[in-house]
Parts: sequence; C-alpha cells; structure tokens
Amino acid sequence: MNVFSTKEYQQRLLKTKSSMEKQGLEIIILADPANMNYLTGYDGWSFYTPQVVVVALDEKEPFWIGRGMDTNGAKHTCWLSREHIIGYPDNLVQTANNHPMRFVADFLKDRCWANRSIGLEKDVYYFNARWLEEFQQALPHVDFLDCSLLVSWVRSIKSESEITYMMQAGKIAERAMQAALDNIAPGIRECDAVAEVYRAQIRGTESFGGDYPAIVPMMPTGEKTSAPHLTWTDEPYQNEQAVNLELSGCRHRYHSPLARTAYIGSPPPQKLQDLANNVVEGLNLTLDAVRPGITCEDVERVWRTHMAKLGMEKESRIGYSTGLNYPPDWGEHTMSLRQGDRTVLQPNMTFHMILGMWLDDGGFECSETFRVTESGCQTFADFPRGLLQV
Amino acid sequence: MNVFSTKEYQQRLLKTKSSMEKQGLEIIILADPANMNYLTGYDGWSFYTPQVVVVALDEKEPFWIGRGMDTNGAKHTCWLSREHIIGYPDNLVQTANNHPMRFVADFLKDRCWANRSIGLEKDVYYFNARWLEEFQQALPHVDFLDCSLLVSWVRSIKSESEITYMMQAGKIAERAMQAALDNIAPGIRECDAVAEVYRAQIRGTESFGGDYPAIVPMMPTGEKTSAPHLTWTDEPYQNEQAVNLELSGCRHRYHSPLARTAYIGSPPPQKLQDLANNVVEGLNLTLDAVRPGITCEDVERVWRTHMAKLGMEKESRIGYSTGLNYPPDWGEHTMSLRQGDRTVLQPNMTFHMILGMWLDDGGFECSETFRVTESGCQTFADFPRGLLQV
Repeated sequence: MNVFSTKEYQQRLLKTKSSMEKQGLEIIILADPANMNYLTGYDGWSFYTPQVVVVALDEKEPFWIGRGMDTNGAKHTCWLSREHIIGYPDNLVQTANNHPMRFVADFLKDRCWANRSIGLEKDVYYFNARWLEEFQQALPHVDFLDCSLLVSWVRSIKSESEITYMMQAGKIAERAMQAALDNIAPGIRECDAVAEVYRAQIRGTESFGGDYPAIVPMMPTGEKTSAPHLTWTDEPYQNEQAVNLELSGCRHRYHSPLARTAYIGSPPPQKLQDLANNVVEGLNLTLDAVRPGITCEDVERVWRTHMAKLGMEKESRIGYSTGLNYPPDWGEHTMSLRQGDRTVLQPNMTFHMILGMWLDDGGFECSETFRVTESGCQTFADFPRGLLQV
Repeated sequence: MNVFSTKEYQQRLLKTKSSMEKQGLEIIILADPANMNYLTGYDGWSFYTPQVVVVALDEKEPFWIGRGMDTNGAKHTCWLSREHIIGYPDNLVQTANNHPMRFVADFLKDRCWANRSIGLEKDVYYFNARWLEEFQQALPHVDFLDCSLLVSWVRSIKSESEITYMMQAGKIAERAMQAALDNIAPGIRECDAVAEVYRAQIRGTESFGGDYPAIVPMMPTGEKTSAPHLTWTDEPYQNEQAVNLELSGCRHRYHSPLARTAYIGSPPPQKLQDLANNVVEGLNLTLDAVRPGITCEDVERVWRTHMAKLGMEKESRIGYSTGLNYPPDWGEHTMSLRQGDRTVLQPNMTFHMILGMWLDDGGFECSETFRVTESGCQTFADFPRGLLQV
C-alpha cells in the first residue's frame, strides 16, 4: 500500500531533479530517512543501519540501497520497480573491516557514475563522518558536494494529500493532549500520565490510527520546566505546579506538534496567569499576521514587538518548518521563524510556532502547527490556548 | 538526581582514560548520546541538536557542551561541576553560516588543546559528516583519529547497578509482551494493540516506571513478517496468522529486549509449530552454552550446528551486545554473536540473542536478553518461549 499515488512521487522526483540541475548535481545520495521516504515511500525502522537513496538525473526512478533483510520492507512500501531496490549483505553490518558505503561506492563505479557531479547529505542525522571517509577512500578523485537540504526544501511546500495527513495528525494531537490533562493529577506518577499520552498517540481516532512521533512526549513539571528536553520520571506530580506539555500527533510520518501548559490542583498564581495571557495574546497576534508574501523574520517581529511592549524578550527562535519526519526531530531544518530568516512564506508551507516564557519557578508555553493559506493561516488542532487547569 | 553514584561515574572515567592512553589519545570528543550519558549522566531528548562531551586525560571531569537551553537539563542530570557544563548560543542551531562544532573547536583552541592527539566519534549516529568538515576547517593541522567504539567497549562489562536496571527493564518487557498477547485478536487494529504495548512500556511496574525504548515495538503479521522493520498500520489483525513481537522494556535508558511469536485465533499449522519447537530447542541449547571464556562465534556455532542438523541456516548474526542506549538502536555495536567475532565472553557482558527462521508464509522468532555470569548466563525476563496462542 503506497501512502501517496505514484504520480505524486514522480512529481516530487521531478522537482528534486530540477533543484539538482540548478545546483549542478547529476547524482545525489540521500541518507535522511524523511527524504528517502519522500522520494520512494520507504518507511521502516531500519535507519539504524546504513541505507541510502540514490537519485540520478538520467534515471526514471531512484535506487533504494539498504540491508538485505530490509529489501522486503522496501518492496512493501516503495513505488519503485524491483530492480531499483538493492540489498547489501549482512556481513557489512557493524563491522570494522568493511562498510555499506563501500558497497554504494561500487554501485556508482559499476554504473560509471564516479566521474559525475555527486552530492551527499553531509548534514543529516544518519550520514555520519565515517560514511564520508568511506566514500572519500573508495572514490578518491571525487569532490563530493553537500546536498543536505536539497530535498528538504522541495518538501517545504506540501501537497493536498500531505496537508490531509497533517490535519489528521492534528486530530491525534488533540486527543493526546486531552489524555495528558485527564491523567495529570497530584500523586499520579509522571510515567503513568505519559503512558496514557503514548496510548492516545498510537491509537489515533476511530477512523485512522496513529504513527510514532519523532520526539517523545515532553511533560516537565516544577523546576524541570526550565530544562525543556528532560523526559519523565516515576515521581508523582505535585500540587500547585505548572506542567508544560509538548507532544505531537503523527500520521504516516506526518506531524502536527502541539504545546500547552497546565496548572495542577489549585487556581494558578496571578503572575503565571498574567504571563499566560500575554503569551497567548502574542501567539494570536503572530498567527494573525501570517500570510503569503511576508518573511519568516516578519512573523517573528510581530511576537518580538508584542513582548517588548511588556518588557520581555525570548532569545531563541519561535518556530520552524515541520511535516514528514523520523526520530530524533520533527523539524525540517529549512525555515526558522527568527531574525535573519528572509524566506518568503508561500501557501502550504507548514510550521510549528511555539511560544514560551519562563519565570524563576516555572513558565508558560503554547504552540500551534499551521499551514500558510492563500490569505492567512490554518491551524491543524483545535484546543483551548490559555493556561489549563487540572 | 543521579542515576548512579558519582563514584561509579568516576570509575567509568578512569577506565575510559586508560583506554585513551592505550590508543594514544589525549582528548576524545563524544557524540553518541549513550556514551555521553555513561560518562556524565546527561539524559535529555536534545540529541537532535549538536552536543558533545569532551574528555581530556589531564582533566578530572569531562566537559558537557550543548545548546544553551539544555544546560539546565545538564545541571539536573550530570554529576559534573557547573564550570564543566557549557552552553552555546541559540543562533548556532540549524543555520548555514555557523555551526556548534566551530564553538567546540574554539573551546579546544582556548585551552591550547589543538595540538594534542584528538579522537572523534566518527562512526556514531549523531556525529555527521558536516561536523567532521567543520572540525577540519577550524583546525586544519589536526589529524583527527577515530575513537568511535572506545567508550562503547568500556560499557561492555556492566556494573551491578547497571545489571539491576537491566533486570528491571526485563520485568517491564514481560508486562509489555503480556499487553501484546492480551490485545492482539482478530479484528483489533494493529495500532490499538501497539498502543497498549507502549502504555505498558512507559507505566513500568508499581515499584518503578518505564523509560522510552530506543526502538519502537515491532509487531508485524502475515506477509509483513518477512519485512522485519516495518512498523504497524491501522489494519486489523487477521485470523490464522502469525505475529512476530519484538519489543523492549527500558529503565533509566537500560534495555532488555524480548521477542516472541504468537499465532492468532486458531491452533497453529503443524509446520510452524515444528519450526517453533526447533528454534526454541536451538535457543535453549545456545543459551546453555554461554559461559565466560568462550567467544562470540563459539556461541553462534552452537546454534548453527543445531540448525544444520535440521537442514536449515540463518544468514544474519544471532545476537549483539545491548544495554544503555538512545534511538535509533538499543544495540551497542561492539560484539556480535556471529562467525568471525572472537571476543571472549566475560562476566556481566550483556547480550540480546534473537533467533528466527522464516517460511514462505510467516516465521517464528524468539529471543532473550541475558548477562554472562561466573558460570553461565542469566536471562532478565521470564516469559514462555514457545509459539504462543492468542
């Protein structure tokens, strides 16, 4: 079962080849699982062993090259013809004396492609330094170029089918967020509340199931809210603490992240409530400003101006492009909503805008995932934005 | 709260320095989140942005260097003194014109360490090719060595505290496996059964909570059992199909993977039952053979000989070292139970031994995670090994 039509994959390939031509690349070797999925449909938890997709300008289909035992998975999930799915032997896995990239280099040599202009995804998660050195040793006369964000940029404008999956992911995110609110209470262990969030993420809805998000649910509380990437413990939640909730729904590897903040057990302190009101007002204003034709930094400026009026500043970026992805990140690494990013917004670009401010004893964060429309933006989840009480 | 005593971290550091000296390395730069955790205690889902741990022979503590916003998480989880926790500015994140490794290179230069013998983890997941090129450009006269498995090998023999966490992970794995068996049934969607497995993995037991395993639950059924790394769908399980179950419990990032096979709805076909009996007999024989002093390939040979008597052969390795880890893999990439691996077993080495054979229409797999004891081996989960019926 392909998640998209073969026609859609072929259109993606055409756009990719067009970018390759502009950048003077005849062959690109992709290692980012999201980019591999985008062009071939391949979807499996096998990116812990080396695997690549090779796109050549003059080939009608990409080549998927991975571990022999994963070729069956490729046949199940890819639109490619069988001869474009190539497995390497298992004795290349995790051994000092050989490496799957030597196999890929031989593949290039066999096709007499080694003298072409070749791009490698040097700045993606799974293309590690050894892969580069293996390529350099196997093909010492090739000057490998970097094509890290080439396909990621093609991905930046979503198709209607992709938007549909992100909307479905938004519905799953709503349910996961509700599961968090329903299960966080004084005396309940963090792990037990997180377990219910996971369950809701994977169950999805009655109409469609959920996929594993690229990042685990983040639900820090108390002083740990100042450490945004710590995961849960088995300690119980405490009364009179804020808890930040950052999670995503996922559908066919498409994400719609959502962040909220809840206060446990009692009415929240007035200064946290005031902070929440200010942040939500800023979020609303900033979302209202989104429209095609303005830049990423224009969007960020709306927020910055709002907060400056209140005498506050947030140092880090306030959002980034999102969509199709694999662990460890659901961000696409192309556009950031921050000063200096002059990318012009276009319809069906999709972002996760996440706003947060921290006080000494806890903070407030709130986010939305949205697409740019013809005239503004559309969010994928429908969930109250204020400080929530549990 | 540190997961281990400061003394244990210091002992790990001493062993690491001893390995560094043997390999002629004065400084090593670690990027593998498991290795970073092992030496510092750092535990956060922040490895999607560049971060490293620097160990210098003549420094009493390692340095943790990561994104500024994650220094609070480092202060929460590391045993290091504050001046050994260093944050880089947020404008280095995901930008074309700068990179966190330039910051790390400056850190080395500031300490006049650039002329020392420096090792990089070139063959781990998050140290990508760009990191290497950034180091090479910033420090063009340094010949960076590879130290990829140096700390992983130090990790290969577990302490009593680590064994305790792996035993706890084994108890969680039992519960997760039972959740799978309790929820797989004809007409139940795959995602709904997987959701209950996730829930059990994260809840853990009443005495201790679960952590997120480094690999998602794999529960393929029917023809998808021949594609071992495909994840679930929202299709219902069907009557009269085998389902392979591969999952792990996780406790403080320590894993105890467990694989079983169930047959849905009816008594299994005789040839699958026969296969299961043969594989379980082989697993039992092979586990019985484990003891200190023999090699990894000696262990594999027991299985190979058993299966050869039955006219069968399994091409890939039958196990690997496991323990502390982060996505995308719970394997340690040091030892494999396969021909050619002559590593000698020692007490408290820990492995996941996974045996499987496939017929045309489905297969049988079964695994155990164990430690080598003074005289044999001890498994961490207690779960029936035969073909299970649901």
